[in-house]
Amino acid sequence: MAPNRLQLSKFRNFNPETDEEVDIEYSSPQPGAIPGTLDLEPDAPPPEIILIDYNEHNAERFTLNSPQECGAYLDTESVSWVDVLGLGNQETWRELGKIFELHPLIQEDVVNVPQRPKVEEYENQLVLIALMVILKPNHQGFHREQVSFVLGKNYLLTVQEEPEQDCFDSVRDRIRFNKGIIRKQGPDYLAYTLLDSIIDGYFPVLEAYGEQIEDLEDEVVTNPTPRTLDKIYRIKRQLLNLRRAIWPQRDAINSLIRDGNDLITHEVQIYLRDCYDHTVQVIDMVETYRELTSGLMDVYLSSISNRMNEIMKLLTVISSIFIPLTFIAGIYGMNFNTDKSRWNMPELNWDYGYLFCWGLMIVIAASLVFFFWKRGWFANFSTIRRK
Amino acid sequence: MAPNRLQLSKFRNFNPETDEEVDIEYSSPQPGAIPGTLDLEPDAPPPEIILIDYNEHNAERFTLNSPQECGAYLDTESVSWVDVLGLGNQETWRELGKIFELHPLIQEDVVNVPQRPKVEEYENQLVLIALMVILKPNHQGFHREQVSFVLGKNYLLTVQEEPEQDCFDSVRDRIRFNKGIIRKQGPDYLAYTLLDSIIDGYFPVLEAYGEQIEDLEDEVVTNPTPRTLDKIYRIKRQLLNLRRAIWPQRDAINSLIRDGNDLITHEVQIYLRDCYDHTVQVIDMVETYRELTSGLMDVYLSSISNRMNEIMKLLTVISSIFIPLTFIAGIYGMNFNTDKSRWNMPELNWDYGYLFCWGLMIVIAASLVFFFWKRGWFANFSTIRRK
Amino acid sequence: MAPNRLQLSKFRNFNPETDEEVDIEYSSPQPGAIPGTLDLEPDAPPPEIILIDYNEHNAERFTLNSPQECGAYLDTESVSWVDVLGLGNQETWRELGKIFELHPLIQEDVVNVPQRPKVEEYENQLVLIALMVILKPNHQGFHREQVSFVLGKNYLLTVQEEPEQDCFDSVRDRIRFNKGIIRKQGPDYLAYTLLDSIIDGYFPVLEAYGEQIEDLEDEVVTNPTPRTLDKIYRIKRQLLNLRRAIWPQRDAINSLIRDGNDLITHEVQIYLRDCYDHTVQVIDMVETYRELTSGLMDVYLSSISNRMNEIMKLLTVISSIFIPLTFIAGIYGMNFNTDKSRWNMPELNWDYGYLFCWGLMIVIAASLVFFFWKRGWFANFSTIRRK
Amino acid sequence: MAPNRLQLSKFRNFNPETDEEVDIEYSSPQPGAIPGTLDLEPDAPPPEIILIDYNEHNAERFTLNSPQECGAYLDTESVSWVDVLGLGNQETWRELGKIFELHPLIQEDVVNVPQRPKVEEYENQLVLIALMVILKPNHQGFHREQVSFVLGKNYLLTVQEEPEQDCFDSVRDRIRFNKGIIRKQGPDYLAYTLLDSIIDGYFPVLEAYGEQIEDLEDEVVTNPTPRTLDKIYRIKRQLLNLRRAIWPQRDAINSLIRDGNDLITHEVQIYLRDCYDHTVQVIDMVETYRELTSGLMDVYLSSISNRMNEIMKLLTVISSIFIPLTFIAGIYGMNFNTDKSRWNMPELNWDYGYLFCWGLMIVIAASLVFFFWKRGWFANFSTIRRK
Amino acid sequence: MAPNRLQLSKFRNFNPETDEEVDIEYSSPQPGAIPGTLDLEPDAPPPEIILIDYNEHNAERFTLNSPQECGAYLDTESVSWVDVLGLGNQETWRELGKIFELHPLIQEDVVNVPQRPKVEEYENQLVLIALMVILKPNHQGFHREQVSFVLGKNYLLTVQEEPEQDCFDSVRDRIRFNKGIIRKQGPDYLAYTLLDSIIDGYFPVLEAYGEQIEDLEDEVVTNPTPRTLDKIYRIKRQLLNLRRAIWPQRDAINSLIRDGNDLITHEVQIYLRDCYDHTVQVIDMVETYRELTSGLMDVYLSSISNRMNEIMKLLTVISSIFIPLTFIAGIYGMNFNTDKSRWNMPELNWDYGYLFCWGLMIVIAASLVFFFWKRGWFANFSTIRRK
Repeated sequence: MAPNRLQLSKFRNFNPETDEEVDIEYSSPQPGAIPGTLDLEPDAPPPEIILIDYNEHNAERFTLNSPQECGAYLDTESVSWVDVLGLGNQETWRELGKIFELHPLIQEDVVNVPQRPKVEEYENQLVLIALMVILKPNHQGFHREQVSFVLGKNYLLTVQEEPEQDCFDSVRDRIRFNKGIIRKQGPDYLAYTLLDSIIDGYFPVLEAYGEQIEDLEDEVVTNPTPRTLDKIYRIKRQLLNLRRAIWPQRDAINSLIRDGNDLITHEVQIYLRDCYDHTVQVIDMVETYRELTSGLMDVYLSSISNRMNEIMKLLTVISSIFIPLTFIAGIYGMNFNTDKSRWNMPELNWDYGYLFCWGLMIVIAASLVFFFWKRGWFANFSTIRRK
Repeated sequence: MAPNRLQLSKFRNFNPETDEEVDIEYSSPQPGAIPGTLDLEPDAPPPEIILIDYNEHNAERFTLNSPQECGAYLDTESVSWVDVLGLGNQETWRELGKIFELHPLIQEDVVNVPQRPKVEEYENQLVLIALMVILKPNHQGFHREQVSFVLGKNYLLTVQEEPEQDCFDSVRDRIRFNKGIIRKQGPDYLAYTLLDSIIDGYFPVLEAYGEQIEDLEDEVVTNPTPRTLDKIYRIKRQLLNLRRAIWPQRDAINSLIRDGNDLITHEVQIYLRDCYDHTVQVIDMVETYRELTSGLMDVYLSSISNRMNEIMKLLTVISSIFIPLTFIAGIYGMNFNTDKSRWNMPELNWDYGYLFCWGLMIVIAASLVFFFWKRGWFANFSTIRRK
Repeated sequence: MAPNRLQLSKFRNFNPETDEEVDIEYSSPQPGAIPGTLDLEPDAPPPEIILIDYNEHNAERFTLNSPQECGAYLDTESVSWVDVLGLGNQETWRELGKIFELHPLIQEDVVNVPQRPKVEEYENQLVLIALMVILKPNHQGFHREQVSFVLGKNYLLTVQEEPEQDCFDSVRDRIRFNKGIIRKQGPDYLAYTLLDSIIDGYFPVLEAYGEQIEDLEDEVVTNPTPRTLDKIYRIKRQLLNLRRAIWPQRDAINSLIRDGNDLITHEVQIYLRDCYDHTVQVIDMVETYRELTSGLMDVYLSSISNRMNEIMKLLTVISSIFIPLTFIAGIYGMNFNTDKSRWNMPELNWDYGYLFCWGLMIVIAASLVFFFWKRGWFANFSTIRRK
Repeated sequence: MAPNRLQLSKFRNFNPETDEEVDIEYSSPQPGAIPGTLDLEPDAPPPEIILIDYNEHNAERFTLNSPQECGAYLDTESVSWVDVLGLGNQETWRELGKIFELHPLIQEDVVNVPQRPKVEEYENQLVLIALMVILKPNHQGFHREQVSFVLGKNYLLTVQEEPEQDCFDSVRDRIRFNKGIIRKQGPDYLAYTLLDSIIDGYFPVLEAYGEQIEDLEDEVVTNPTPRTLDKIYRIKRQLLNLRRAIWPQRDAINSLIRDGNDLITHEVQIYLRDCYDHTVQVIDMVETYRELTSGLMDVYLSSISNRMNEIMKLLTVISSIFIPLTFIAGIYGMNFNTDKSRWNMPELNWDYGYLFCWGLMIVIAASLVFFFWKRGWFANFSTIRRK
Repeated sequence: MAPNRLQLSKFRNFNPETDEEVDIEYSSPQPGAIPGTLDLEPDAPPPEIILIDYNEHNAERFTLNSPQECGAYLDTESVSWVDVLGLGNQETWRELGKIFELHPLIQEDVVNVPQRPKVEEYENQLVLIALMVILKPNHQGFHREQVSFVLGKNYLLTVQEEPEQDCFDSVRDRIRFNKGIIRKQGPDYLAYTLLDSIIDGYFPVLEAYGEQIEDLEDEVVTNPTPRTLDKIYRIKRQLLNLRRAIWPQRDAINSLIRDGNDLITHEVQIYLRDCYDHTVQVIDMVETYRELTSGLMDVYLSSISNRMNEIMKLLTVISSIFIPLTFIAGIYGMNFNTDKSRWNMPELNWDYGYLFCWGLMIVIAASLVFFFWKRGWFANFSTIRRK
């Protein structure tokens, strides 16, 4: 598939049927594990750690070999964004936990993915769990991963589930080239900006579903097949999953705005209101799509019944016309002995008996055709046609 | 179509099937854009700006060439209504932002249409986003656009998405001819009046849907077709969209009444209560119509099944009558050799064999017709008739 | 129809199908009209105005020619009930507005009927909008009109939409003959009494629907027709309308009890609690009936499918029995030349060929009948019978 | 039906179809009646009045001839339980009202049955309206009546709708034999105990419904008939009624616990919490059963469609096999003149023509049977069998 | 079934159809029983009682013969976990009640299982009722029992319904081997840990349902049978039961967090928040599965209708092709006397009459096959095939 064709039919390749990544099975805790147990693969490589340290005048970017190197930057007045790409191993978390003084439950929430999105307040720290969805470049589905924020006095620690991709490049550019007001603000504004990027990433995914639903609206009336039914059900299931991801995010942001927190300035709260609005828009769209999908299920059933009516009409028309004719043919196929009695089937010996018989048949067939035509039964046969 | 015919069948031409404008896809933010980024076409013409400045004694109307000309009027005690028709370009917003001291997020909400209706309080300013719907003159659908209000101490800034039409002419007349109490009141009363006009504009649109639903109520019982199903589904979808637009408007007005605001006098709050009532009435109607539409979907399915029963009855009646008769004809079409044995089909040689055979057939057919007539199967065939 | 027959089958004549008066389309405001604009016919006759002035000792009744005549009675300590029958014309409201010092929005709510039921507090006045339903004398439907209450210090102003009928006669009698405690109480008790009469008027209407639903419960199982479906849908729609009327009435009374008001004494609040209970009972019944109606819709669909099964069984029984028999008759109607070969249809020349053939047919038919009888297919045919 | 058979199949005789007593039509007030009007039959006999007066040391039981005889016991410190069995007549209530100083609205609520369960506080009195359900001894349905409680300083007045039966015998025994702590407690504990007995009486009724639903779960899949549908609908309706009775009881008890009342000691409040828990359990069960009933309705519809498929398969199998065979028989029943041309039906004169014809038929029939067998059409026919 | 096969298809053997243990019928109180009556079998054996007494330095484990032996440990500063395995008999509870000073209502809630999960505060004690579910070792269903917690100053009393199994072994290990912080914390932390183990036990059960639903998703589209319907309904019922168990558990934990309690330290409250999150995740999953199950029911019905369409198509195709052909064969089977008139069936004497007749039939059959093929009727027959 050439890329320029993808350019044309933007989301058409988005395939909700094969994309299973969208299913959210929450990380199921090891029964009986000690709270704070980290569910990590023992031989996982250490994560990539990017530190961006900036203030109004400067912005520097470092790739760290070990979490311990952060230490020097955290105490300065400048904002330190520590971006951990990948979950890493036990060693990583022992060091991270020490440097950032992370409560064991914070570590559990960050590492045992996926968790339900939420905001939790700890002493001197604010933890925010969010779920990022990214429409894949070729639009063949979307990628989903957890992003965790730990907001402190002068720093923001973010942990991404996978190192490959995120939607934060534009934020990195804004820091680097000092666009907007980001360099003048603290780590709370940075957290808001990243959260906003995550919420904005839901829109293209939802638009892809919107287009899928529109396609199905046609299909369900003109050519409903079992595959159509399957597609509707799968979209319904995926919307249920998206809804499960976005509702707690709304609650989390709302509790931030309502309850306030020392780590978040009044000015950033105004921005969070804007972010909250976008979240509510996403929820609005998900709920509307869900109701439309339920409606489509009803339309599908009605459509199938409609189609059945058409099939039954065809059968009825053909049967109703030919069964009486066959009966007449049967009558004159009887073998009553015409020689024995003049009452026995005299028609057989009429000069125009055969023609009379055909005439009778034609009259009956024509009457029935007229009867059905009057009731409009032929008008609708076009709908059986496959398009 | 002649206009006087439209006069007769007022809303009949309203066509929910082809009117796609009613779909609300919220403005999807550019992922990663700086908050406050305006999504404007670079070469858009500047908007038309109408300034109406009035107090109890005078009312003047100006067409401004540039936002900067507002400056002189804003500081006076008189009420200044700055009506911006069209979203304009970056230049316009740079100037508007400077003169009215607009927060970047206000500009984003006003320009990146459509936004979810809401009320937001800023220092010295109150921002209200509303959605206006206008039934088109020939009743062939409706027009939808966002109207944004920025209410300040002595001024009201309104921004309309498109310059062509609005529902504010009667308000302009009231100011010009000093009707009612509008000239004695401040910009808060003006904002209320405009908002009230917007809410009132929902009623004719809903009445159009009400009439559509009434038409469908007949159609769905007397002559259900796949087109009927399609219409019901589309009305359902459009009502979902209207509901998405009107619910947040209710919340916004409610929060204004409940929380109060320095910019809104106690007297205007009483009027807002009235406006709130109208909004709730609109919601009542939307919800009722939505439930009726769901009911119609069920009725449709039942109607289709009913129709199937009628078709099946017809097939069963014809088959049940003719199949036994054809069997009898088949019997006497057998070729058993009557010469060989007197047990072989002696009826064939009876004098009245043929008549006896007809008699038997007529008796059987009459019995079956009587059987079906007693069960009332013929009474209902009229319902198959297309009206 | 003789009246004594109506007496027998009390609510049976109640006809939900032709009664369109129950639809509540809220008064749709003139777009852009000045708030407080009254939507009156210009040449309407003045309303009938009845003034009942009473205290513990006396009760007098006057028919007034003009609202201005009220003036003298309003200032006295006695309770003045000004009952305006009909909406009247602009002149009436100019005078009423002046004497009772009515806010323009009160006038709008009272005159532009129907409004959503509500309670609104104004300075020194309490406004209550209620919806009265009256079962028509011959039980052929019900009448619906708005009743507005304006409660002041020593007076109660009530405005009825139409002069013909109301449910207040017993209250008038109680005042006239000094029954109960009404003459010892103030205008707040009078308002409660009238409101209670209105709520009580919902019960007979709901009972009429209850009986309709019971009739439909039988009909839907024994003899479902498209007309049954239509009736269920119409009752559903009318219950939706009743619900729209009664819910806001509950909210209004509840807010009165919860928030209190200077114009309502503590003792009357206890009575209002009773009135609130009745409203909740009405809501309970409406909601139960609504759920039953939805259930009936499902039962209807299942019933139709059941009936289809019966029809299909009949067709299948007849086809299954006669098609094999016809096939056998067809076999022995073949013309293979028995003279050419002794393998060609030797049965035709058997002495008992014909009897053998009949025997074969009877055995096959009997086996099939037995097969179907064992499966209980004949047991259910009785259900096709129309009762 | 012998009683020991009833013993075996405990609730099986419970018949939801004929039991109409469960329908709750709230007492519909006489329109326009004076508040406090009692809806009693004028010539009703006086009720039986049982007075049980007890303290920690003694317990006495009296049958009173007239309410006036209570007087002496009410003023003592001992707890007086006045149990009025039956609603009695106007005279009864005049006296009861005088002795207990009952507000007219209390009398109305107690007498005009059924009322919505509720708790109302009056000066020095607490009124509680509850609905008692009792599974009938032979399990053929249940009995329903209103029990009203008036709790005063040293007394408890209970009024039962009918004198025949109640679920209070164990409480009477506990008082008489001084079991538990009841004799050490005040009238509030007595009221709690009686209320608890009423709530506990719901469990056997619900279990009877649970067993009915379980029976229907089998029936609906193995042998769905119109009667099944009727039963599901009736259970649904009765559960709606039970729900209408139990929800307000929960609210009433909850408001007692939440708001407290001088007449209820802290210790009894702990017991009320337990009673509240039982009420919530009842609600849980009612709601679950309601959802199961709705599920059953869906299963029923699917089951009917399944059955239709089986019927259609049978018809299709028989038609598909015999229609081609009949066609072949028809071919060789044609009368083309074999003498005129050797192209005319030479098969008729073949030596093995007839056998060839049979062979052809058998091959076709066997192929079709194999075709259907491969598709598993025969495997499912067993499901048509009535069990 | 060999164990290693079970290992492979982990949850596949989980059989929701035969597992009836999941049904939750709340313990129905003996009508009229004294509050606090224990519903125990009189001759039940005494329960096994395990006492684990630990502090930061030591941990000891005792098996007690009688509750009285606890006494010595309860007064010490160390944490005493008294784990009662089995409900025991009246004697047990008399002793337990005396030693732990249990309110009769606590005893009732603990013994009369199952109760609705809840938290209740008593003086110096906190009672928590929870419901434990354990996936059985061979995954053939799950086991359900009530676990009751009584939390006191220095002790935790837990009572399990059955002695066989629980999910607390890892907690016992943590105490024994001093893993995590459990030995440094009080009995509140122990209670949290046990509660957390119970909540975590829901995840494997829900995953088993998730896999069942996924299997059904395939089955319902490819091969829907009445058994499929039965399975969907049963899963729905079991999810309703799980939901009834987990919702009150959420409310209980939430009320603990919100209201606080002297017996629970601030630090443990942070851990309870984590436990609350897991409960909400379980609820999320239950609700999603419930919605999916409802969706499956709709898909099933549509699937059955689809299948019906396929059957009808097959019947229609065969009937439509052979009925006209049989009619033609019938025509030429008529016995009109060709000798009498040249108009009587001259085709019979044509040289190529028979061939012409076959040609006519083949043309008709081919046209019809083409007609159906064009409409795609043959393409779908594959879906009838059983997979």
